Amino acid sequence: MIDLRSDTVTRPTAEMRRAMANAIVGDGVIDIDPTVDQLERETAALLGKPAALFMPSGTMANQIGVRVHCERGSEFLCEADCHIYHYEQGAFAQLSGLVAHTIAGDCGVLGVEHLVGTIRPENDHMVRTRLLCLENTHNRWGGRVIPQEEIDAACLWAHEHSLKTHLDGARIWNASAATGIDVARMVAPFDSVSVCFSKGLGAPVGSALVGSQAFIEEARRARKLFGGAMRQAGIIAAGALHAIHNHRARLHFDHEAAQQLAYTASLLPALSIRGGRVDTNIVVLDIDPLWGTAAEMQSRLFASGVDCFAIGEQAIRFVTHLDVTPEQVQRACRILHEVMAMAGSVR
Amino acid sequence: MIDLRSDTVTRPTAEMRRAMANAIVGDGVIDIDPTVDQLERETAALLGKPAALFMPSGTMANQIGVRVHCERGSEFLCEADCHIYHYEQGAFAQLSGLVAHTIAGDCGVLGVEHLVGTIRPENDHMVRTRLLCLENTHNRWGGRVIPQEEIDAACLWAHEHSLKTHLDGARIWNASAATGIDVARMVAPFDSVSVCFSKGLGAPVGSALVGSQAFIEEARRARKLFGGAMRQAGIIAAGALHAIHNHRARLHFDHEAAQQLAYTASLLPALSIRGGRVDTNIVVLDIDPLWGTAAEMQSRLFASGVDCFAIGEQAIRFVTHLDVTPEQVQRACRILHEVMAMAGSVR
Amino acid sequence: MIDLRSDTVTRPTAEMRRAMANAIVGDGVIDIDPTVDQLERETAALLGKPAALFMPSGTMANQIGVRVHCERGSEFLCEADCHIYHYEQGAFAQLSGLVAHTIAGDCGVLGVEHLVGTIRPENDHMVRTRLLCLENTHNRWGGRVIPQEEIDAACLWAHEHSLKTHLDGARIWNASAATGIDVARMVAPFDSVSVCFSKGLGAPVGSALVGSQAFIEEARRARKLFGGAMRQAGIIAAGALHAIHNHRARLHFDHEAAQQLAYTASLLPALSIRGGRVDTNIVVLDIDPLWGTAAEMQSRLFASGVDCFAIGEQAIRFVTHLDVTPEQVQRACRILHEVMAMAGSVR
Amino acid sequence: MIDLRSDTVTRPTAEMRRAMANAIVGDGVIDIDPTVDQLERETAALLGKPAALFMPSGTMANQIGVRVHCERGSEFLCEADCHIYHYEQGAFAQLSGLVAHTIAGDCGVLGVEHLVGTIRPENDHMVRTRLLCLENTHNRWGGRVIPQEEIDAACLWAHEHSLKTHLDGARIWNASAATGIDVARMVAPFDSVSVCFSKGLGAPVGSALVGSQAFIEEARRARKLFGGAMRQAGIIAAGALHAIHNHRARLHFDHEAAQQLAYTASLLPALSIRGGRVDTNIVVLDIDPLWGTAAEMQSRLFASGVDCFAIGEQAIRFVTHLDVTPEQVQRACRILHEVMAMAGSVR
Repeated sequence: MIDLRSDTVTRPTAEMRRAMANAIVGDGVIDIDPTVDQLERETAALLGKPAALFMPSGTMANQIGVRVHCERGSEFLCEADCHIYHYEQGAFAQLSGLVAHTIAGDCGVLGVEHLVGTIRPENDHMVRTRLLCLENTHNRWGGRVIPQEEIDAACLWAHEHSLKTHLDGARIWNASAATGIDVARMVAPFDSVSVCFSKGLGAPVGSALVGSQAFIEEARRARKLFGGAMRQAGIIAAGALHAIHNHRARLHFDHEAAQQLAYTASLLPALSIRGGRVDTNIVVLDIDPLWGTAAEMQSRLFASGVDCFAIGEQAIRFVTHLDVTPEQVQRACRILHEVMAMAGSVR
Repeated sequence: MIDLRSDTVTRPTAEMRRAMANAIVGDGVIDIDPTVDQLERETAALLGKPAALFMPSGTMANQIGVRVHCERGSEFLCEADCHIYHYEQGAFAQLSGLVAHTIAGDCGVLGVEHLVGTIRPENDHMVRTRLLCLENTHNRWGGRVIPQEEIDAACLWAHEHSLKTHLDGARIWNASAATGIDVARMVAPFDSVSVCFSKGLGAPVGSALVGSQAFIEEARRARKLFGGAMRQAGIIAAGALHAIHNHRARLHFDHEAAQQLAYTASLLPALSIRGGRVDTNIVVLDIDPLWGTAAEMQSRLFASGVDCFAIGEQAIRFVTHLDVTPEQVQRACRILHEVMAMAGSVR
Repeated sequence: MIDLRSDTVTRPTAEMRRAMANAIVGDGVIDIDPTVDQLERETAALLGKPAALFMPSGTMANQIGVRVHCERGSEFLCEADCHIYHYEQGAFAQLSGLVAHTIAGDCGVLGVEHLVGTIRPENDHMVRTRLLCLENTHNRWGGRVIPQEEIDAACLWAHEHSLKTHLDGARIWNASAATGIDVARMVAPFDSVSVCFSKGLGAPVGSALVGSQAFIEEARRARKLFGGAMRQAGIIAAGALHAIHNHRARLHFDHEAAQQLAYTASLLPALSIRGGRVDTNIVVLDIDPLWGTAAEMQSRLFASGVDCFAIGEQAIRFVTHLDVTPEQVQRACRILHEVMAMAGSVR
Repeated sequence: MIDLRSDTVTRPTAEMRRAMANAIVGDGVIDIDPTVDQLERETAALLGKPAALFMPSGTMANQIGVRVHCERGSEFLCEADCHIYHYEQGAFAQLSGLVAHTIAGDCGVLGVEHLVGTIRPENDHMVRTRLLCLENTHNRWGGRVIPQEEIDAACLWAHEHSLKTHLDGARIWNASAATGIDVARMVAPFDSVSVCFSKGLGAPVGSALVGSQAFIEEARRARKLFGGAMRQAGIIAAGALHAIHNHRARLHFDHEAAQQLAYTASLLPALSIRGGRVDTNIVVLDIDPLWGTAAEMQSRLFASGVDCFAIGEQAIRFVTHLDVTPEQVQRACRILHEVMAMAGSVR
């Protein structure tokens, strides 16, 4: 089975396992775990921020980021298709009592033109607008890299209006690999950033939240509250450290593989690529209803040896990653072609 | 000063004051207040529902309605410009931990075409969709009456998908007066409805939430939680009773007054009527930026003796009501005409 | 029926009704209601604080007081039998996410000796202690007046430790009437106070929260959030104004009536007065289980024409108030004597 | 340095590291991680419950347990000194809006005599009582084993009154080792149990929550909400599996070491053992103020090579564990003796 469901399915390599087995650890709750500490310091440095905090998941990193920026009775602005709003079980509301003020962008890109006028005036009828959240690369829009000038402009606008800025940078590594822009430069306009070690980078577990010292101090308190404070987490932090040392340079292979899939799809009349482009390792395809549904396409591909996700009635997603070989990509393209041809003839 | 800021500014009439002074009252928390009880029974009957509950405000009625329908970890669907989302300080999130899933309609109207595909699948990444909220008349869209067939269709769709339905019917009295449709018929497809006695009906204080017996029982508990359980509230309930008995039949005067304002505005090139129509007692005008801003228009009207609200950078709102005489409406039209002419020449 | 269930059952007098009928009112949400404004100014002045805010209930006044003082992630200290903890549906937790840190006092009195050591150190494992709440008179401890020197000492201790202080002063009027101490002096050590107009003072509806200007500004915002912002609330505020002008001086009659009931109870071997004393208008009696239960006693008294509350398995409460005549008190004493004799013989 | 601060400081052994390095893993969020799955199945079996769920921390396991049992608007009963109330940052209130109803027990033991009368009647003034939480061994009461008959009786009482029961069994392994009672028998009366792998058992990270299938299904959803869903968590689950296979049988060594410390303390007049007994691996000592404070004692022990926690003004705690050798225990006893003698002479 060629597993293209997500880049979260990657398993640790032999070297990564060795690094984890040999990690120096300590009690990270009452003390410091040296490997976690190293990971946090290196991550902060990579992203050009003063401090970082290791977390068990990206959901926790995002939701704690939002919570720390937004005091009781406030809201954050976000793009209407973002992960924080859709795929984190509304923790911002459930756990933190916050409102998500969603704004439809242009294929996932929130420009200043979309943002103007969205900040609420101070008025007892309304929540207070405190934060702008962006996502780069944008998951639901097929791993799209948000143009840096749009990000810079949106964050400038936010700061001019006294908003804080948070980036859901779960796949910021891919954005940097695709554009060649240094990751610290990419996240420079943000007050906080979440990054993930267990997606394209291939570590088994973990994310980090980065920001100022004061911000991270409050985030640490929130991590304890959420139950995310772990003892000898150096074991898994060692996997994450290995990942940022060794797996960033290879992300372009995943992007090339995604291009191959996209090219194949572009030849198939029943498929169109969401947003018209594939920037990184995610390929989201909209399916012509005349052909059939995403559920049908998913089950046929599965029967032929390719596993992927139906992410809507008529949308399907492939994600390339560390554990997919070039041969598998070629085979997946061939299967995609066959399945679409075959199925098309059914109707 | 001609006060067209809101129909909430109305003051009780002499007869209403007499009714309040003579109200029979009791301790509504540990017992029953007979006048509150009568108001609740009559309101429920008017709306064709089994039970009603008196509340100090429409915000409380809506927010308790939403809370009772939506269990922990769920969301409600609502039109993107609705009052519940914008003007109730996000109580659904702050106090109840719920997510507002906003959907842009067509000039305030949510059709089934906008709703299809918005219910989230059962999946640990997502909140559970539990409720559809509509608003009739629609405040932000200029007191628009939502077409009954659209409401019926949307609620049918909701019920077919196991959602509950709640109507923010703060001004449902106006919708009924404007269309001639019986108010019970209008709210028939809803599981719960909030109505307001202190807007067009002119009572000093109070709203009601109506629904099934079991729903109202849980709402009563929530009212205690929110601090809305009052002792001898029969005093103000008597005003509300007087209002539903005596002030519903006169709402068409307010609608005619709004038409006069709308007609005046339609002759002024710098103004356009939001949504192209005025159905009830609210006139929302979008102002040509070449003319100036809503703040400028509001302050010039104020200087000339007309008080109204700027509800956006380039939007202004007039509301007609019980305490505006026909002469005042004519004068307001004249002032509107003068101010717009005058100001236009400034640029 | 002699209604001794609570002093909340009082109905407005004829003069109070006249005052309400003639009240000058305005829209208290978008503007100011002049009568509410006058009530707030007079209440603040009476209590010696800069500002006050009218509320539909004492529960809302207390819960907003606690919420405004306690930021997210904090707790308040309170006496283990207090109203805020037991009888307000845990709104502090449900709506505001706060922890009640209950401390058993001595018959309802929290002395510094009980408080020492209760403030939590700054530590991510723990909430932050931010507020001390006291209650005077103390409802569950039979309307007990907390000794002023204990209050002063507890508040001094709290302020020395950077805690804020809030008084649930629903019946502070009774405490002042009983001790002769000016009410402003009594509440001087508190940062905020809630007072009730609809208990011993006999107004139909309403409470107030008092404190600093900045505190009341945030409380006003919270009142909107809770749905407690009312339009022409001057109608009921006029009743409260009348009450503080005219009904404070007569509270000693209620206290004398309570003494009569207490004296009668003291002669009955099956009854003992909780805490050994009756300071104001509440008489809480503990019932010897050999005699029977509170439920039995309550139903027998009811059958004989006295209505009261069983507030525990073996505890019963009488409250005297404006609407109980001296003759009724005498009759209630006689009935109490008869019922207890009769019932005793049954066993 | 002899580290007696907590049994959480233990580091993985060489074999445990090997087990982790070789763990078979999968994506535990979109799929199943086979090692996590095995750990969950074995833990559930050990505890005699249908299902288990792996968590990053004991705080998360407890707080999710409480949340799932307690619907919105409810409270749980717990012993006044328990971990859930004191050391988990009030997550039950902050994140779940719940009230902790604390009840003082007898040296940490909640008997039925303490519980009778604590369940609130159904009444809109009050939260609903839904759950009883116990803790075994009891941390703040010096690792005390709660007598099984007291637990059985309290849970029987709870179930008779329709309450659910949850055990904070972070150190239930120690309780079982100390009493010889099978751990499944110990937890039989509970609807849910949290257990910890990273305390006495020595795994680097992780806890589990166990209960019925339906309960664990809702807990899984809550784990996602809290940000506790991890991808290839089999790495750390392998450590936990190794711990339950290999480290339970050796817990009696820790208990014997604690006895040595307790014996030493019993000879020192300035020290008394909290609750008069040491049942497992925790020794809590109350310090005579004439000798000095816990902070002084802690810093002197530290200077002499023993690290421990001051857990109150006059209380100090030692915890024995896997990484303390018999020689270290003897040395710690000698140092304790010297420090107390020395310090005593200072005063």
